[in-house]
Amino acid sequence: MTLSEAREKLAELQRKNAAFGHAMSLLYYDGVTGAPKGTAENRAQTMSVFSRELYQLGTGKETVEVLELLDAHRDELSRHEARQVQLMLKDLRQMEKIPEEEYVAFQRLMVEADDVWHTARETNDWKLFEPVLEKVFDFHKRIARWCAPEKKPYDYWLDRYEEGLTMETCETFFSTLRGHIVPLLGRVLDRPQLDDSVLKGSFPAREQERFSYELMKLIGLDLDHVGLATTEHPFTTSLGSHLDERITTHYHEDDFSNSMYSVIHEGGHALYDTGSARELAYTVLDCGVSMGIHESQSRFYENIIGRSRAFCEYIFPVAQRCFPSLEGHDAEELYRAVNRAQPGLIRIEADELTYALHIMVRYELEKRIFAGELEVRDLPAEWNRLYREYLGVDVPDDRRGVLQDSHWAGGNIGYFPSYALGSAYGAQYLRKMKETVDVDACVRAGNFAPINEWLRERIWQYGCLLKPNEVFRNAVGEEFDPTVFTTYLEEKYTELYGL
Amino acid sequence: MTLSEAREKLAELQRKNAAFGHAMSLLYYDGVTGAPKGTAENRAQTMSVFSRELYQLGTGKETVEVLELLDAHRDELSRHEARQVQLMLKDLRQMEKIPEEEYVAFQRLMVEADDVWHTARETNDWKLFEPVLEKVFDFHKRIARWCAPEKKPYDYWLDRYEEGLTMETCETFFSTLRGHIVPLLGRVLDRPQLDDSVLKGSFPAREQERFSYELMKLIGLDLDHVGLATTEHPFTTSLGSHLDERITTHYHEDDFSNSMYSVIHEGGHALYDTGSARELAYTVLDCGVSMGIHESQSRFYENIIGRSRAFCEYIFPVAQRCFPSLEGHDAEELYRAVNRAQPGLIRIEADELTYALHIMVRYELEKRIFAGELEVRDLPAEWNRLYREYLGVDVPDDRRGVLQDSHWAGGNIGYFPSYALGSAYGAQYLRKMKETVDVDACVRAGNFAPINEWLRERIWQYGCLLKPNEVFRNAVGEEFDPTVFTTYLEEKYTELYGL
Repeated sequence: MTLSEAREKLAELQRKNAAFGHAMSLLYYDGVTGAPKGTAENRAQTMSVFSRELYQLGTGKETVEVLELLDAHRDELSRHEARQVQLMLKDLRQMEKIPEEEYVAFQRLMVEADDVWHTARETNDWKLFEPVLEKVFDFHKRIARWCAPEKKPYDYWLDRYEEGLTMETCETFFSTLRGHIVPLLGRVLDRPQLDDSVLKGSFPAREQERFSYELMKLIGLDLDHVGLATTEHPFTTSLGSHLDERITTHYHEDDFSNSMYSVIHEGGHALYDTGSARELAYTVLDCGVSMGIHESQSRFYENIIGRSRAFCEYIFPVAQRCFPSLEGHDAEELYRAVNRAQPGLIRIEADELTYALHIMVRYELEKRIFAGELEVRDLPAEWNRLYREYLGVDVPDDRRGVLQDSHWAGGNIGYFPSYALGSAYGAQYLRKMKETVDVDACVRAGNFAPINEWLRERIWQYGCLLKPNEVFRNAVGEEFDPTVFTTYLEEKYTELYGL
Repeated sequence: MTLSEAREKLAELQRKNAAFGHAMSLLYYDGVTGAPKGTAENRAQTMSVFSRELYQLGTGKETVEVLELLDAHRDELSRHEARQVQLMLKDLRQMEKIPEEEYVAFQRLMVEADDVWHTARETNDWKLFEPVLEKVFDFHKRIARWCAPEKKPYDYWLDRYEEGLTMETCETFFSTLRGHIVPLLGRVLDRPQLDDSVLKGSFPAREQERFSYELMKLIGLDLDHVGLATTEHPFTTSLGSHLDERITTHYHEDDFSNSMYSVIHEGGHALYDTGSARELAYTVLDCGVSMGIHESQSRFYENIIGRSRAFCEYIFPVAQRCFPSLEGHDAEELYRAVNRAQPGLIRIEADELTYALHIMVRYELEKRIFAGELEVRDLPAEWNRLYREYLGVDVPDDRRGVLQDSHWAGGNIGYFPSYALGSAYGAQYLRKMKETVDVDACVRAGNFAPINEWLRERIWQYGCLLKPNEVFRNAVGEEFDPTVFTTYLEEKYTELYGL
């Protein structure tokens, strides 16, 4: 094979990968949006055929030959090609350590686990989910041992969602957060609580949908390439490339803020993905690089922008046009309501201050299961104990406890720390962005272009061309410092609660 | 390769085929249901990767070896396997005659043509569609020459939708229909027209959706395996196997009968597909065998059942519960309204009597283009001339003329005669079914089980195990006789119009 043939093969391999990725994401998306409820097994059948095809494509003789040849000539490749080869070889080296049948069985288990979890959550039936979740954790342990026997298994999985992340980093990071958030929260809870009655009322799904599109346009999503649907659990996915992105939300007709912040959060993910440079489409460099950086975009829009006073001032009249029940309220009430700090049961409904505590519970549990210090069957009791310890709340049932998240059922173990990391990254973006952009003035005027341009130029356009830590440094020109985030929280909540 | 290995390979090949089919149908379905409007090119990218994979899978060395080996041992195969090998070899022999690049280009053209047609139809812009449609027809001519040089090109395409169908058969068939329908229609139009005011009013989409689900349950669809969505043009598709079927409809808020008959029509297709025996799933024998037999199911439910007096009697109170504007009307008015015969412009809105005339226009045009007697650029003028000649109506614009159907843009040239054939087959089913089932009494009671069982036992369960003509003979125990259909029409319209 000549070098030029290998380069062509490299492009072709990626186009195939993208096509299979398109199909598999679309199968999942269809499963949670329009599919009749008895069709999961039918999707699992196709998923297992495709995961085998992907395995054979990713580890096949020709692929190995192409990637090794290109790797040996890495100095003659373009910057894009060199990074493509690096990422694909990394995947190849991991994938080939997993036996083919195990790889296929794992993909199939994930479709089954997701299906069982949906039922278990609906019916508050932990016992139904327990045996499947045991298999899921066991599989994750085995895969970590196969792929990275030199690492602690949980470190292997943390690294899958944020390259370079380890338990050691997490411990330091969480301990910094805890050291600031716990006392701050204590002072907040000593003060009179903020009123959130502006959020309560009757908000028909149809009007909320209209409002969702207003929000999407406002933050700068291109509706020709970003779709909206409703699902039990909001999420974002790209289909085949960043040229077709889908976000979902869930409407609660008694509180419009729930879906509003889902749309802004998922919209942040979608801005990041669709911001990849055009030429990255159909390559492994397309879309966001890691979950940490991804959550730094979504949580930046959701909280730092979306829960700012300036945003509430801009959006309130827009919301009033959609929801007559907002008559007689004002933007400042909205601002206070959406920033009310209150330890609660549900992660995705948590405020900006208590959110990280929800993440720490999950981190602690995952870590101990991987270390063999905790059994899956003991998860509910331990979940409840930690919620009492970290958040001071009693979990009344597993539906609002250990069964609430889709991540474990979806095979996303090791993902949760990305949310907390992303939240913290965002505060540092804001500080840096403010050096050149009058963020408050832009948001108050509903003008997101300067903010989006700042992020596009420093983060979005690169897709996976840079590593996560390079992306971060490229954006802010300094190392990650979680106290920027805790200072942001301290200033915000001091003002809000008059501490 | 041993025989037993080849049999395993046969099953695996079919599972792969089914998975690719699942993905490609889902891509199409997504494109016309939820996809943002700027994403067609992105889907075309994945479609062309998959069509190449399918081509290589279908014509690859191993596939040829497996199928030839099994064909040589056909006496040792099960009945199912033997038919699978026969159908797959037939496909293989055709596919390998089309150059790979042409095959992929054809699939890609179809995605483009569908996209251009949607815009052309919306904007009434024939000139936009003309060059693409020229390419579509040219491609069809070339494919016919490659695959069946011994046949007339149009005969090749007719056979693709109904095995064994030729222009000769069509001519005889259409001439029989014309000989009965034209004079019958003349007599009908001499009589006072039936009143259809019961259909007009305000029928909100949301209430129509509720009504759609009532209809689906009524005719016996299993909602765990059959989904409903809305699209510009109603259609049915199965995703991966008969275990996941989707139908679509389109709501006109000023006339509920439009969507009602779409749901029943597409529901008939879905009953047929989902009625395949369980063990046919993930094989080439799964789902309906030909478009003629398919349309015989959909048009049987839509017209012979759905436009019967018994059905109107059962459904009217159900409709009344959904639509308050039906207050003061009765079932007999509904029966007369939905059977009003009136030559019109739009095929899918045509009544049972004039419907076949719409088909004949399309048949005539396709035939003459394939014969080189008509150019694509002359289609609109010729379309309009034939509508005047066959139906006596003036076509005011191409949107309501030559641009109305999705078939040509979707590459379904040669499909139209199946509708007329299917309509005629249905009358013969009815006559036979009545020997053992009191069809009217069942329908009037909303009890579809005996009707569905009759069809399941004789038609549905076989999937593609029998050829279309075998399916038909198996069902009615006699040869096809289109005068059974014309007699049915004559009796029905004589009574309706008091001829």
